[in-house]
Amino acid sequence: MRATVMYGAGDVRVENVPDPSIIEPTDAIIRVVRACICGSDLWPYNSMARSETGQSMGHEAIGVVGEVGADVRTVKRGDLVVMPFAISDGTCEFCQEGLNTACVHVGFFGNNGMNGAQAEALRIPFADGTLYPLPVCEDDALIPSLLTLSDVMGTGHHAAVVAKVAPGKRVAVVGDGAVGLCGVIAAKRLGAEQIIILGRHTDRIALAREFGATDVVSERGAAAVERVKALTGGYGVHSVLECVGLDQSVETAIEIARPGGAVGRVGVPQHEVIPGAEPSFYNNVTVGGGPAPVRAYIDELLPDVLEGRIDPGRVFDQVIGLDQVPDGYRAMNDREAIKVMVIPS
Amino acid sequence: MRATVMYGAGDVRVENVPDPSIIEPTDAIIRVVRACICGSDLWPYNSMARSETGQSMGHEAIGVVGEVGADVRTVKRGDLVVMPFAISDGTCEFCQEGLNTACVHVGFFGNNGMNGAQAEALRIPFADGTLYPLPVCEDDALIPSLLTLSDVMGTGHHAAVVAKVAPGKRVAVVGDGAVGLCGVIAAKRLGAEQIIILGRHTDRIALAREFGATDVVSERGAAAVERVKALTGGYGVHSVLECVGLDQSVETAIEIARPGGAVGRVGVPQHEVIPGAEPSFYNNVTVGGGPAPVRAYIDELLPDVLEGRIDPGRVFDQVIGLDQVPDGYRAMNDREAIKVMVIPS
Repeated sequence: MRATVMYGAGDVRVENVPDPSIIEPTDAIIRVVRACICGSDLWPYNSMARSETGQSMGHEAIGVVGEVGADVRTVKRGDLVVMPFAISDGTCEFCQEGLNTACVHVGFFGNNGMNGAQAEALRIPFADGTLYPLPVCEDDALIPSLLTLSDVMGTGHHAAVVAKVAPGKRVAVVGDGAVGLCGVIAAKRLGAEQIIILGRHTDRIALAREFGATDVVSERGAAAVERVKALTGGYGVHSVLECVGLDQSVETAIEIARPGGAVGRVGVPQHEVIPGAEPSFYNNVTVGGGPAPVRAYIDELLPDVLEGRIDPGRVFDQVIGLDQVPDGYRAMNDREAIKVMVIPS
Repeated sequence: MRATVMYGAGDVRVENVPDPSIIEPTDAIIRVVRACICGSDLWPYNSMARSETGQSMGHEAIGVVGEVGADVRTVKRGDLVVMPFAISDGTCEFCQEGLNTACVHVGFFGNNGMNGAQAEALRIPFADGTLYPLPVCEDDALIPSLLTLSDVMGTGHHAAVVAKVAPGKRVAVVGDGAVGLCGVIAAKRLGAEQIIILGRHTDRIALAREFGATDVVSERGAAAVERVKALTGGYGVHSVLECVGLDQSVETAIEIARPGGAVGRVGVPQHEVIPGAEPSFYNNVTVGGGPAPVRAYIDELLPDVLEGRIDPGRVFDQVIGLDQVPDGYRAMNDREAIKVMVIPS
């Protein structure tokens, strides 16, 4: 079959690789119906050290279940499923608490040697715990929005939950990538009164406004902090969704939080320390977040997608075939595309 | 009157200073019945740059109200009151939310030029919002425990609240100073099942056990992390109370938290960044805390003190007069005393 492999910064190839097969009795194989390229894929795209073997890429998919192992119980051949970006067994204490990304069997697709979903097919460990069956057909018009439940919509929602967004609250979203845009959807869905997006790309800002952003701050650093405070009666926002992962964006996130506020960070950290130990302390600002347990959030988000109350699939503004994936990386990296959807076959 | 003034690291003096007087109509004057020396006073005791004017010291007290300004309504001459370490007006939006330490009129006694409570008397701005009247006499046996409501008991409680301590949870307390010991009381009071104290002073550890600590970890750094994990089934604790404020203690706090856990930090930070941006992210560990809104917590904690369910006053193991305050600093700094109580007259 064909699959995407990254060999180093800027070097993404689509190659023939062996077909996946059942290894453990809890495995399933999916045929990938839709995959996509994630903003987090751009970190290795810009910095990955050269590798002889390469890294199979992609961690977001909707697929159709093919072969299943002998112990698989809740998904069956022919099911259309969401594949969240992380493996989870569905039974350990962390999965039971809804933190599937801390599963004792956790693994991240397209990372650390695990195969990825920018491919024609993929082996899914712990298929019962990992995959989420969908009640629609694979040509349904809602497929783009359903695909976001594999990562970006659940991740934006996680940022909002950790940042304690609630009815009437003032919210800021740092970053206008697909996760930030889904963060706007999540904040509005949870009842935020004011939603300030910090970003500077015209197309993304326009979509943020359609999703419910009430204010836009294009400044950065101290100027951004000043602007957010001016927009919020001088004190900052109750909730900050940090959807970038850089040192400066985290610092800004902490500084625009109101005393007693909360920062939910979901941008994969490109830094070893959290800046602002003193402002976060003196303002009693809570900093939380991490890899979103998107599997657990599907129960809550799916009805809103199925009934059309949210439409996160609008973040996809390019659709390509598998062979165009290298171009898709380039387009996202050059900010020509917000998010690229891949139709493998 | 006599008051304590610090002129630089190690240089604490008790001097004659002008008596306090009403300046604003919202002021009150208190005669200090009991004050104390705080672990946080040891930071300037070890590092304060030489000052010509000096800094008046002390931010914890029980006092008797003397003169009151024309606009003071809820406290009156003769009332016995707790003086929390921070001024709060009691009416702003932050006070109304219970975050008095973010009051728009906040100020910290014995800090940044404000007068302190290691003195015979003190002017209290915003007396109605700041002071909390007590239903006992000034010679009551509960006075030591009531005095802790001005800071250390409320601060330990804040760490526990921010760290989300709840019935059945596993808790670790980093630091065996008076705040850490009060953190043990707070954790037990909130229903923790396991309370691990990280500390190495025999007297303090013994008291921690009496307060409810179930385990003691005397190691530091990686060895401490390993030991806590061994004590908690391999995953760490749900809640960590960080009661030190050093880079290493915060790092340890993050590393001993269970995935999805929370760190409540109340140790005044002696560092500019929060270490562990990656472990806290990948484990979805929340880091919060700051100056405790102890004024707001008195409503909840006072009945437990009055009815003898908690006895935080046991952290005081030395009682001195005002003239012995310089010796008190030395004793706490040398870890000869856990916490020193001062009887000014």
